[in-house]
Amino acid sequence: MHSENNSWILSAQCPSRLGTVDVVTRFLKEQGCYITELHSFDDYRGGQFFIRAAFLPEQADFNGDDFREQFTARASAFDMHFELTPPDYRLPVVIMVSKTDHCLNDLLYRYRTGQLAIDVRAIVSNHPDLEPLAAWHGLPYHHLPITPETKAEQEAEVRRVVEESGAELVILARYMQVLSPELCHHFAGRAINIHHSLLPGFKGAKPYHQAYEKGVKLVGATAHYINDDLDEGPIIAQGVEAVDHAHYPEDLVARGRDIECLTLARAVRYHLQKRVFLHAGRTVVLTG
Amino acid sequence: MHSENNSWILSAQCPSRLGTVDVVTRFLKEQGCYITELHSFDDYRGGQFFIRAAFLPEQADFNGDDFREQFTARASAFDMHFELTPPDYRLPVVIMVSKTDHCLNDLLYRYRTGQLAIDVRAIVSNHPDLEPLAAWHGLPYHHLPITPETKAEQEAEVRRVVEESGAELVILARYMQVLSPELCHHFAGRAINIHHSLLPGFKGAKPYHQAYEKGVKLVGATAHYINDDLDEGPIIAQGVEAVDHAHYPEDLVARGRDIECLTLARAVRYHLQKRVFLHAGRTVVLTG
Amino acid sequence: MHSENNSWILSAQCPSRLGTVDVVTRFLKEQGCYITELHSFDDYRGGQFFIRAAFLPEQADFNGDDFREQFTARASAFDMHFELTPPDYRLPVVIMVSKTDHCLNDLLYRYRTGQLAIDVRAIVSNHPDLEPLAAWHGLPYHHLPITPETKAEQEAEVRRVVEESGAELVILARYMQVLSPELCHHFAGRAINIHHSLLPGFKGAKPYHQAYEKGVKLVGATAHYINDDLDEGPIIAQGVEAVDHAHYPEDLVARGRDIECLTLARAVRYHLQKRVFLHAGRTVVLTG
Amino acid sequence: MHSENNSWILSAQCPSRLGTVDVVTRFLKEQGCYITELHSFDDYRGGQFFIRAAFLPEQADFNGDDFREQFTARASAFDMHFELTPPDYRLPVVIMVSKTDHCLNDLLYRYRTGQLAIDVRAIVSNHPDLEPLAAWHGLPYHHLPITPETKAEQEAEVRRVVEESGAELVILARYMQVLSPELCHHFAGRAINIHHSLLPGFKGAKPYHQAYEKGVKLVGATAHYINDDLDEGPIIAQGVEAVDHAHYPEDLVARGRDIECLTLARAVRYHLQKRVFLHAGRTVVLTG
Repeated sequence: MHSENNSWILSAQCPSRLGTVDVVTRFLKEQGCYITELHSFDDYRGGQFFIRAAFLPEQADFNGDDFREQFTARASAFDMHFELTPPDYRLPVVIMVSKTDHCLNDLLYRYRTGQLAIDVRAIVSNHPDLEPLAAWHGLPYHHLPITPETKAEQEAEVRRVVEESGAELVILARYMQVLSPELCHHFAGRAINIHHSLLPGFKGAKPYHQAYEKGVKLVGATAHYINDDLDEGPIIAQGVEAVDHAHYPEDLVARGRDIECLTLARAVRYHLQKRVFLHAGRTVVLTG
Repeated sequence: MHSENNSWILSAQCPSRLGTVDVVTRFLKEQGCYITELHSFDDYRGGQFFIRAAFLPEQADFNGDDFREQFTARASAFDMHFELTPPDYRLPVVIMVSKTDHCLNDLLYRYRTGQLAIDVRAIVSNHPDLEPLAAWHGLPYHHLPITPETKAEQEAEVRRVVEESGAELVILARYMQVLSPELCHHFAGRAINIHHSLLPGFKGAKPYHQAYEKGVKLVGATAHYINDDLDEGPIIAQGVEAVDHAHYPEDLVARGRDIECLTLARAVRYHLQKRVFLHAGRTVVLTG
Repeated sequence: MHSENNSWILSAQCPSRLGTVDVVTRFLKEQGCYITELHSFDDYRGGQFFIRAAFLPEQADFNGDDFREQFTARASAFDMHFELTPPDYRLPVVIMVSKTDHCLNDLLYRYRTGQLAIDVRAIVSNHPDLEPLAAWHGLPYHHLPITPETKAEQEAEVRRVVEESGAELVILARYMQVLSPELCHHFAGRAINIHHSLLPGFKGAKPYHQAYEKGVKLVGATAHYINDDLDEGPIIAQGVEAVDHAHYPEDLVARGRDIECLTLARAVRYHLQKRVFLHAGRTVVLTG
Repeated sequence: MHSENNSWILSAQCPSRLGTVDVVTRFLKEQGCYITELHSFDDYRGGQFFIRAAFLPEQADFNGDDFREQFTARASAFDMHFELTPPDYRLPVVIMVSKTDHCLNDLLYRYRTGQLAIDVRAIVSNHPDLEPLAAWHGLPYHHLPITPETKAEQEAEVRRVVEESGAELVILARYMQVLSPELCHHFAGRAINIHHSLLPGFKGAKPYHQAYEKGVKLVGATAHYINDDLDEGPIIAQGVEAVDHAHYPEDLVARGRDIECLTLARAVRYHLQKRVFLHAGRTVVLTG
């Protein structure tokens, strides 16, 4: 959300105890790292601590590898897992999609104009339709059709493409296939899906039709990590849109497009800015 | 929502067919009724037509009873049910509440200052706590305690109070008892409840605790008519509020109060302005 | 907003008087036109009446020209201006843009996928940068550079392109040139501009920088018709986004993009659905 | 916003330099203070650093005065101003009001139910109308009428009441008098006003009438600190509400009430939770 292209990000989590902040901030001070933004949260019920610091090294010869190596000793005393992300980092991603293209179009626009610091390595689809859009952006497009019989093979191919691309995140931008439990497990915490309802409401197929049946006055979208239980993964972001009686299911589908795009893009941004922490099936999102 | 204190309201619904608008608007013209706002909607799937007209009679001797009588003949040819509501009409209501008082306080403030055209005839509670608040507003307070054993009696008493009060609407402003199916049925379409979640999500007890468990990023409130199926009645209005990981269940409870008040007040306003139509288990709300 | 592709739209306005609704609805009835949605508003202060009806002709041989001809006589008795818009009508537009492409990209996406019923006839820009985007959509791109010296000529050229294209609406999708009073006057009511502030706040140049200076906690966007007084034209739609102290001007610029796109698209949709009426320097938008 | 009744709050600001976070967090660690939430922001353009820490002392005999004394030496080396706020602290306030009572009613409700940790010491009004409301809450009500001739005296009396009450904050809850520059200056940074527009738009009198004239589609409210320049003080919070052509000025007045209440209450909450920092005519609000 904020100007941070020239900041390093240190993000970490560990079990709660006295001194968790100090072990991070004291080290940053010692290393001559100037903190521009800091946010920590201690979940006293979950017993877990989360911290995110954006900083500028004052030394010209600041070296990330050295930082990591030296901090590891201190962090390990706190059982702390941390990540150090350099400035101008662009997250390598693979986008999966079917025929519906509004989320893909939105992501590619933000990618092309640098508004979202992703590096799109490939687009995977079970349909050929969106190949021209990929081509215009100069991106490889893998058309991997799927049938009940070929599902296992197709998913193996998906895994291979993702692996070879070097992607660190898979974005399911309205990929309309139910992933197998194996693939869900494989991608757990490394894939973000957009579901077109306010989860846990209207899980599963045709959420807008369910919403119409119930006569709701708000529809929404949920971006969440994939985990073993489909449509139950940890929620990262949610958005909402007012509707009324005159919206038939197809109107809700149309109406929901914008909020799906915005919610997915927001979740991806939080993720790549290292604002999202996964713990005990829920997320902590340090947006401040 | 709009200045209409000096307007009459004609609201009606009937099965869809050619001429439904004309039968209303032609009559209004003939009667010298100046339409200030008109809204109709024809639900082509449900096959039902809805209309609401706000108008000013041009004749000084306009008489509502005559209007009703004369329009009845025309309306019946269309199987049309209609209501005529005079200007400055104040809807007689009974408010039911337990111990939680934010919705009651909000409704009484709007009542006292004339912001909501209701005429509060009585407050019914299963607890004595809110009697002073009622007293300050000069309102009768019926403390009707309830136990599993006395539920039938208590509900009979509730019905008696409502009946004798002449109330046309019962407002369940965080009344924390599950109404019996009989009472639900009795009040169907004549009672508005506020539920502290975005229905159909988090039905039943402790919705904020359910929301916390799921790690949602939005909480909401739903105002709906009571019908036979608790928490499944036709939705009138919904509101939403952003939350994050730092909101424990008790924070969500606190956070949700404002949106509960606003959503309930909005639904009551729509109802008394004759904007809400019930048909086939859903609502049409002509807010325009 | 709603499914209306197969509906005709009759929109009209005239001075306020008794019978304005009836003259429209009676005629529709007589012509066998089945009204699916109707909305009228009488501005008693401005003394002007507005109406919009969506309808389906029951006769297979319904003829728009005949309808117009026959209705004209009745309408003229009320000094009523009306428009009849056929189903599946796509509004011919010219889009003007400079270098900033988020609004253009958004409009072209909605155009390409049929989400916005516009027929883009041409794109006009004072810069060559966005030609590839136009080319990919197969659209003519007129690069018309401008300098203080050539402004008059350039604007004449703009007018010529618009005229020859047959466009009924010009969309200023972040066209960063101040139009001359003559061109403003020429396009008055036929051109929609997106301004990146909540007008009348932060008029003129660099509104996000102005917003930063003031330390506002909300930024917004305004879509309005062009009229003689720049940035003062009648407002059609406004949107808003929360920001905080950590948003420097360049962050506000980034933050505002989405709301600019959404607000402009919404205004164009209202316009082409004939929901917007211009009267006395303000708009009436019948969104119901 | 979050459960913090049992947390101490340390809030501080100082000129930007390396080590500002460390001087705070190291001290907290040394004192055995367990940080539950921490947020810092370094405004690199303004050259000022802001930090807020919520913490729980691990020692049973933790003493705030000792903490303050010991931290003062370290803080002064950084030119750091800090505040230490104990758990369960309730901010002493005086509320000023005229005849319009929605904000007062809202604040008193939150006060009475403990939703807002304020300790209302007195209510000051230039009208007698709201005395009964104060009386019901058992609060002293100072009716201090004002005329152009008595303005100086009345303001002196206001100052006296505030002083004697021990209030640390004055809340202008729709007090419809223009404060003199002297009183503004006296209260600068210690008084929060609610203005019924999105400042800097529609400054001065009758903002809703101005909004109507401009035909805006959104109205809003702004809570800001008083400073020397009326309606130009540093903004703390803003809220917004959609409106349309059918809202005449008196409808906008009605429509805006809820958002005024919510915005003012939010600003007061931020203030008493020590989330708001004043610097260079702007606020930093650490809401995280």
